[in-house]
Amino acid sequence: MVNLDEIFKELKKGISEIIDEDRIKDLIKNFYEKNENFYVKIGMDPTAPDLHLGHTVTLQKMAFLQEHGAIIQFLIGDFTAQIGDPSGKSETRKKLSKDVVLKNAKTYEDQVFKVLDKDKTIIMFNSEWMNKLSAAEMIELSSTYNVARMLERDDFAKRYKNETPISISEFLYPLIQGHDSVVMKCDIEMGGNDQKFNLLMGRHLQRVYNVGKEQAIIMMPLLVGLDGVNKMSKSLNNYIGVTEDPNTMYAKVLSISDELMWDWYRLLSKKSLKEIELMQEDVKNGKLHPKKTKEDLALEITERFYNKELAYKAKDEFDKVHSENKLPSEIEEFSAEEGIWIVEAIVKCGLASSNGEARRHIKANAFSINQEKIDDEQLKLKSGEYVLQIGKKKFAKLKVG
Amino acid sequence: MVNLDEIFKELKKGISEIIDEDRIKDLIKNFYEKNENFYVKIGMDPTAPDLHLGHTVTLQKMAFLQEHGAIIQFLIGDFTAQIGDPSGKSETRKKLSKDVVLKNAKTYEDQVFKVLDKDKTIIMFNSEWMNKLSAAEMIELSSTYNVARMLERDDFAKRYKNETPISISEFLYPLIQGHDSVVMKCDIEMGGNDQKFNLLMGRHLQRVYNVGKEQAIIMMPLLVGLDGVNKMSKSLNNYIGVTEDPNTMYAKVLSISDELMWDWYRLLSKKSLKEIELMQEDVKNGKLHPKKTKEDLALEITERFYNKELAYKAKDEFDKVHSENKLPSEIEEFSAEEGIWIVEAIVKCGLASSNGEARRHIKANAFSINQEKIDDEQLKLKSGEYVLQIGKKKFAKLKVG
Repeated sequence: MVNLDEIFKELKKGISEIIDEDRIKDLIKNFYEKNENFYVKIGMDPTAPDLHLGHTVTLQKMAFLQEHGAIIQFLIGDFTAQIGDPSGKSETRKKLSKDVVLKNAKTYEDQVFKVLDKDKTIIMFNSEWMNKLSAAEMIELSSTYNVARMLERDDFAKRYKNETPISISEFLYPLIQGHDSVVMKCDIEMGGNDQKFNLLMGRHLQRVYNVGKEQAIIMMPLLVGLDGVNKMSKSLNNYIGVTEDPNTMYAKVLSISDELMWDWYRLLSKKSLKEIELMQEDVKNGKLHPKKTKEDLALEITERFYNKELAYKAKDEFDKVHSENKLPSEIEEFSAEEGIWIVEAIVKCGLASSNGEARRHIKANAFSINQEKIDDEQLKLKSGEYVLQIGKKKFAKLKVG
Repeated sequence: MVNLDEIFKELKKGISEIIDEDRIKDLIKNFYEKNENFYVKIGMDPTAPDLHLGHTVTLQKMAFLQEHGAIIQFLIGDFTAQIGDPSGKSETRKKLSKDVVLKNAKTYEDQVFKVLDKDKTIIMFNSEWMNKLSAAEMIELSSTYNVARMLERDDFAKRYKNETPISISEFLYPLIQGHDSVVMKCDIEMGGNDQKFNLLMGRHLQRVYNVGKEQAIIMMPLLVGLDGVNKMSKSLNNYIGVTEDPNTMYAKVLSISDELMWDWYRLLSKKSLKEIELMQEDVKNGKLHPKKTKEDLALEITERFYNKELAYKAKDEFDKVHSENKLPSEIEEFSAEEGIWIVEAIVKCGLASSNGEARRHIKANAFSINQEKIDDEQLKLKSGEYVLQIGKKKFAKLKVG
């Protein structure tokens, strides 16, 4: 016997907002009683080719729903990406060429199945119906909504006030996203909480077009990035890509603050709320070291995108370099002629991008050769093999002569 | 040898505003030098089935241009009429069904050739290209213009400020009108001065879509209606329809004020500016009676839509009734049984809409039988033939018994 209350409680873990919660409960209950599936839409504009952990917050909630009756309609907005969506952005987004859009879409497809159950997922492209839509139908669609309400959307309101141009085509985007829900007949749509306006549009249009149901909405909060301040995004370089190698992935998780860690636990871990609360208590009482909990999170995340073995290997590697001051097992190798100036050698091995930077590292006492600090800027290297090191994390092997 | 300066001067008669006057001069010059035609677009939404004199102001300017090289592209907005244009209106216009649109379009077609030269006119329907336009192309089109500038259009600005809803589809209308100019490759577009925004859109889009020319614009003022205050419109019932019968047409012109008459001369008469100015002077000096000039205008307008004979017949009829207190030559006939009560007889003949109104006419001493005033409300008619009359203009024949 399943415990529905327990499922609903877990469903709400980390969620930002739910609209029409009763409907979602009915859908899950119906699945357990009559074995009927329901449809959950997620739309992604294939404008960025790589998914990062921020995207997976929503995907993991969907994976959870898949365990309880959901068929995921993963909508690749290959049509809309050719228009550009300004959500949360301060200026009109550049249009993408069709080739780039399709290439990006393929990359998405490869990546989402690291989280979603492929057998319970339908990949859809909105070009399938949008390419058939006529101008007249587009106008009809746009007659269902008014300008003043559209201008109330946060980012539009801000841009209008700041006199940053909003192209009229951008007003059509939320309508198209909503119209996708009409065609897809989804029961639930998911998205970030910055998408609330567009998500409600789907509900509005399913009503206007008499679909016979109005989609419920689940909004997920935006994941804060490695810096602990801004939302995770590629452009801020505070992200962990789902295709990054296990060592980098593990090390990046270890780099976040203890505070951010609990946030990530709620949004990224499969641990239940109860388990997380117990861990928090143990850390507070000194029964558990926060570093240990962070390692567990890093292991869980790395294992999700690779496997247990590679996750533990990443941990070993990290520990070797950071905790025990040992050399990493793989260091890139370079070679140089005898008598190379040490500053040039540092740049040659990619440990600094300029002579000036290399000198500053030496002056700051951050440079070692074979794990011994070096402060002689004029040093020239004789023939032999050396391990050059800047700080704790950057290494290079150099063969001289 | 044509006098180009004279043509340009007449062209500007009664015009509200010209954009790119040099271009228009070049087009006319080019016609006289190289016998090359140019294209002048006029768009009309077939939402009202009957043209009135207000519409013909622009048509007459086009007829003038036809004499000097113009081919008129008369665009029936059968596609756009199914969306609705809010220009100058305070709320979203009702959509028209396709049947009504086509019926109205036919009526327009029948009427415009009372003014335009049919051989130099091309009737076009924008459904021809708009029905083929895809949603993607519509979105592309809408990306060429921004929301803030659209909201600067007078009526939009007003409605936005007053919180009267503006449907997003209404933002697409000016873009479609401008896109028509792209497809039609017109050299000049004409319209009322309330259309300036939409007319400029055509110029903007011909530039954006690299048509290789940018349309010049001629704007005509709105004709003031019979009341001397509001612009002529069907809904205000201050109009003269181009299909009204000659007697009504003539009589309605005679009813306008002397002041409005000069305005109408400039906008509706074919008389040159010089001739009109001379007439004004003669009236001022007492050499010419203003009633005579008004009769001339009424004759010119009635002749335009019928012929000289019917125009003069209308004048005779008018003079008979109004000036010489004679009976009109044609009076509608009714019949009634002997002993009919006079009040009932008045209503029966359509001279009053209720017994109360009929009584008021009798009390006001405005009712006559056979041109003799009657003040007996209780009168019952014996058998015989009577001419019933209310005031100076309303007559009926009644056969009793």
